[in-house]
Amino acid sequence: MTILIKGVQLDGHTKDIYINNGIIEEISEHCTLNADRTINGKGKIALPSLINGHTHAAMTLLRGYADDMPLKEWLEGKIWPLENKMTAEDIYWGSKFACLEMIKNGITVFNDMYWFWEATAKAVCDMGIRGFLSAVFIDMFDLERSKKQIEHNIELFELSEKYKPHVTFTFGPHAIYTVCKESLQWMRDFSEKYDILIHMHLSEIEEETRFSQEKYGLSPTEFLDDTGILSNRFIGCHGCWLDENDCSILKQHDAKLVHMPVSNLKLSVGRLFPYRHIKNGHGIPFCFGTDGCASNNHLDLIETMKFASLLAKFSSGDPTMLSAKETFDIATKTAASMFFLPEWEIKTGNSPDIILIDTNRPELKPGFDIYSDIVYASNGYIVDTVICMGNILMEERHVPGEEGIIKEFIKTAHRLAEK
Amino acid sequence: MTILIKGVQLDGHTKDIYINNGIIEEISEHCTLNADRTINGKGKIALPSLINGHTHAAMTLLRGYADDMPLKEWLEGKIWPLENKMTAEDIYWGSKFACLEMIKNGITVFNDMYWFWEATAKAVCDMGIRGFLSAVFIDMFDLERSKKQIEHNIELFELSEKYKPHVTFTFGPHAIYTVCKESLQWMRDFSEKYDILIHMHLSEIEEETRFSQEKYGLSPTEFLDDTGILSNRFIGCHGCWLDENDCSILKQHDAKLVHMPVSNLKLSVGRLFPYRHIKNGHGIPFCFGTDGCASNNHLDLIETMKFASLLAKFSSGDPTMLSAKETFDIATKTAASMFFLPEWEIKTGNSPDIILIDTNRPELKPGFDIYSDIVYASNGYIVDTVICMGNILMEERHVPGEEGIIKEFIKTAHRLAEK
Repeated sequence: MTILIKGVQLDGHTKDIYINNGIIEEISEHCTLNADRTINGKGKIALPSLINGHTHAAMTLLRGYADDMPLKEWLEGKIWPLENKMTAEDIYWGSKFACLEMIKNGITVFNDMYWFWEATAKAVCDMGIRGFLSAVFIDMFDLERSKKQIEHNIELFELSEKYKPHVTFTFGPHAIYTVCKESLQWMRDFSEKYDILIHMHLSEIEEETRFSQEKYGLSPTEFLDDTGILSNRFIGCHGCWLDENDCSILKQHDAKLVHMPVSNLKLSVGRLFPYRHIKNGHGIPFCFGTDGCASNNHLDLIETMKFASLLAKFSSGDPTMLSAKETFDIATKTAASMFFLPEWEIKTGNSPDIILIDTNRPELKPGFDIYSDIVYASNGYIVDTVICMGNILMEERHVPGEEGIIKEFIKTAHRLAEK
Repeated sequence: MTILIKGVQLDGHTKDIYINNGIIEEISEHCTLNADRTINGKGKIALPSLINGHTHAAMTLLRGYADDMPLKEWLEGKIWPLENKMTAEDIYWGSKFACLEMIKNGITVFNDMYWFWEATAKAVCDMGIRGFLSAVFIDMFDLERSKKQIEHNIELFELSEKYKPHVTFTFGPHAIYTVCKESLQWMRDFSEKYDILIHMHLSEIEEETRFSQEKYGLSPTEFLDDTGILSNRFIGCHGCWLDENDCSILKQHDAKLVHMPVSNLKLSVGRLFPYRHIKNGHGIPFCFGTDGCASNNHLDLIETMKFASLLAKFSSGDPTMLSAKETFDIATKTAASMFFLPEWEIKTGNSPDIILIDTNRPELKPGFDIYSDIVYASNGYIVDTVICMGNILMEERHVPGEEGIIKEFIKTAHRLAEK
């Protein structure tokens, strides 16, 4: 499949971009090659697509189902009971709708942790985006459960071959308070042997540190260091309660972090992502995530970028922190490198996914600084076109088949809630 | 002018709403009255319109012009020099475009403080919305300047008759560090005599408290109390640095506050709006504002509501704070009462402005709780139709003449930046 984007704005110049099977083969003033599909780029800006560093895609099913509640009551009285009733089919439609919502917001890659792994894998393939998918690995310190989880994860890892190249299998140890040391050590070895990413909640809430200190006499990060699981394949999510020493350990092992500003506020986790330690102090690579729809409730990474940049400024007392351009680069370039994706810049020879921004949207006017306008003044509605792995997934904000997906998703969510 | 909205969702029921010159005359299952204009309400929800409690409308001209800078450098090097070059015509186009942006985001009432009062008044009338407009009253403790400002404000007050009912004149004493006690006392008397609202920045930054303590030996609120200017006509904007005693004084005088969560983060003012004192402790009425486009940069009050609700949860450590419904009510009902507008609820005999929400937007699905979905999962793009003072300003997201306004606005902003 070849695509020619005619007369689009790229780094301030009008260009034609020729894409062959996802690889950018030509960027020029006037490309004369023939393409299977031609896109009129007039009034549009080409940018690399956005990467959602942490979510639970199928939780779209729970959007608006239970908000404004105390955490314990919310989880135990509402979220978990409904999650327990979910079937593979529910998860398929929840994930498929999440993929649709992400496409509509310019996201083509997401890092997921949820139940019924294969259902989400199918949804990702059917929607044509890229998913780094992990099952939720929880053993509650029970070695029998650990054994079963390990077997299940080996099965999924083997199964994942079938869903390449859209899906990449990752490990999803839930958190240090739900997974035993033995399981983590097994994942450490298996992930090293087969080069598998490890996706884990880390230092989201204060209770986690308390638990870790009581059980192990160590902070969560010190404990993970002790298990040997930290490496450049390790991605810790949230990180609000990390201290300076934790950051130094993570940096030492080349581990990465994902920041969920909206979720952290909504669930009032008590501390903001410590940008100063993470960014200035240690230069730990991090990107942004929306988190799931029960704790955000929108898979709009442009909105998330605004929250992230503004919270960085506020919490550091420095209005120059996380500038618009830097924020955008983190959500694209840095995020891609964290997931070992190819260079996420629109250059000849590269193969990033591409979005086209509709510059006619009034919120992007007068148009002094495109990055500033995207991060501070807009939202996902500015995304007009999405190209992923060499295929056009959305044009003029329309995704083929979206009406049917939305309909089936609504039915599924209501059926689930009434179970 | 009569409007009939057919088959729209209202409080969970399908209704017809008949509006005669802005007054809701009938709400029924099937209205048989004839109307000048009929709107198909299918797939839409009718809600009272949003009220923007504090902005500097024409600062749309500066959107994206200078972000991510230290405050002093930003103000002195960028914002003030450009503001000094603005003409009445610039302000007219900046304000007109701001009105357009507000309409597109479901806002029909805004509270403004800016230069060239009459230019903004004209823009408000031309766009058909409602503006509470104040000139920026600054005298820098110079009694000559104070005298001139007083004369100028009396002139504007008289002139404002011409712009009724769209425009209401208010006083805009900039802040306690730019306006002398004598000016404030004059405004106190004049506002009491003619029933004029007073719109003032209050306790936005720590320096303000320091200044007040040094000059007066009082906190900013204690000083205002001392001048006698506090009353139910007083609207203090920001309020981040208010302490418990300040809140008690404000409550005593029935004064009100406006909260600008996005601006406070972006300019990193050092403290969050103290919800606990203001809301729980003293029950001071407050509403939300976007602030101007240089410090937000989007006049989207739905986005602002999400920031406000989430920051309230985070800063109080309580995820039940500012629920979605309460947040929405603050931005509509409470805000209307602060500005002495009629009851802002869609009931027979009332005359609130009305917006219709497009429930087909996927971010509002599955649709378990409309307030939750609006506040946490959406943005201004869900607004389909806007009715203000009995006129339809927007239908299917189109405002008549918007293309021309955008074009002229862009020209104006770029001409200004190049001056």
